[in-house]
Amino acid sequence: MTDKREKSIGIFDSGFGGLTVMKAVKNARPHEHILYFGDTARLPYGNKSADTIQRYTLESAHFLVEQGVKVIVIACHTASSHALEEVQKAFGVPVIGVTFAAIEEVVNQAKTGKIGILGTRATISSGFYQQQILHRLPQAEITAISCPLFVPLVEEGYVEHPITEMTVQEYLRPLKRKEVDCVLLGCTHYPLLQSLIQKELGDSVTLIDPATSCATHLRNLLERMDLKSNQEGIPGYQFFVSDDPEKFRLIGNTFLSYPIEHVTAKPL
Amino acid sequence: MTDKREKSIGIFDSGFGGLTVMKAVKNARPHEHILYFGDTARLPYGNKSADTIQRYTLESAHFLVEQGVKVIVIACHTASSHALEEVQKAFGVPVIGVTFAAIEEVVNQAKTGKIGILGTRATISSGFYQQQILHRLPQAEITAISCPLFVPLVEEGYVEHPITEMTVQEYLRPLKRKEVDCVLLGCTHYPLLQSLIQKELGDSVTLIDPATSCATHLRNLLERMDLKSNQEGIPGYQFFVSDDPEKFRLIGNTFLSYPIEHVTAKPL
Repeated sequence: MTDKREKSIGIFDSGFGGLTVMKAVKNARPHEHILYFGDTARLPYGNKSADTIQRYTLESAHFLVEQGVKVIVIACHTASSHALEEVQKAFGVPVIGVTFAAIEEVVNQAKTGKIGILGTRATISSGFYQQQILHRLPQAEITAISCPLFVPLVEEGYVEHPITEMTVQEYLRPLKRKEVDCVLLGCTHYPLLQSLIQKELGDSVTLIDPATSCATHLRNLLERMDLKSNQEGIPGYQFFVSDDPEKFRLIGNTFLSYPIEHVTAKPL
Repeated sequence: MTDKREKSIGIFDSGFGGLTVMKAVKNARPHEHILYFGDTARLPYGNKSADTIQRYTLESAHFLVEQGVKVIVIACHTASSHALEEVQKAFGVPVIGVTFAAIEEVVNQAKTGKIGILGTRATISSGFYQQQILHRLPQAEITAISCPLFVPLVEEGYVEHPITEMTVQEYLRPLKRKEVDCVLLGCTHYPLLQSLIQKELGDSVTLIDPATSCATHLRNLLERMDLKSNQEGIPGYQFFVSDDPEKFRLIGNTFLSYPIEHVTAKPL
């Protein structure tokens, strides 16, 4: 039987965005094998209902479990805010979600307690982040804003475009009015707009991209559960998507800053 | 056995947009029963691959056939440009696509032969409209532009917003340069941006929204195949969606200009 420690880390996202988390995981644990699954046939999750997001997330996690991963990272905020517990209950594999890292980081970084949260429509309307942060910081004053145009703008390649600048101004107006001092970038695509968002809010505002702290959590979990790989060689990266592997390969390089060689189609 | 003529017209779209076609069908045949299916759990289709669009369209058409519709209208340009023939072959029910009406209308309206086509990324990159129009008008000079931001902008309610105005300017720049005289609005959402598009291109340019000619085609087909309803009473309208019936009911009213009372969930 294969040593459990030498199995892959499974990362799941609705599409491409989770590659930013994979990049952080790769930096934190450069010798681990990684198996990434993007549910590109059904993306985006951010405009779907809670039931459907849960169903899709469970099906995607099931695929990772079938591949024999040693741990699952839910890199998608929408999926993690709706279905983290369900996935934890459903399979006998440790599961961590990017949302958990995000909450930790917000709690550590918030100074005045005036906190902004940006996310998809589904993430914001679930109230997940708001409730979890208030549970830890009952005095917090939270302003949560759904930004449905950010993902299509990033996917159109408009990361520095005047249209995106205007959209950032429009969406962030309530955050400026409330004078928040810390803003959670609660969707994997949003860190790509970090410089425009920072420019709009000013340098005194801390922007939180939980990819790095998610990777740190993962490293601690592997340590704690004795699941760290002992190999020091070049690791294997496998990519599966439910639609259009070639498009994933091309766009994926931007998110990962690493040339993806092969992507396998896996319709769910 | 029920009279075939008294069965419903089935209309299919990836989401809400097809309701603009349903509105035209309602006007053209006010006493026909209509059954609408929106595949909201997997929208949008416009950024998916050809194979996946074909699979989703066949599954959706199969649902309509199971409901016993007398004819299928594929109201979605992306689905119709990728899978019209497949659906026609797969089921023993007449099928018409919004794309067919669109091509007819472009051929009739084009004056100088300088034609613009706007559509989703999948519709434009399939080359379907370009080939079909060139087949009928071999001298045509076609400029085809994919406009992936239009659907999210409409769904954000930004139909008259400065951000949308700027996006329209950006996308239409090549059409202005080419001095097209007729532009196909090749996605069901785009007619909602008609006034901004017209303002940008000027009044001398003809904008083509094929919903009305699609309804005319349908009326002719029902006549020709002796499938016209003979009833004169209040017709029944049924709505099914693969995700989030309540959201569909709320947004749907805007597209249909008619209060939708009940929507049934039908996960595929």
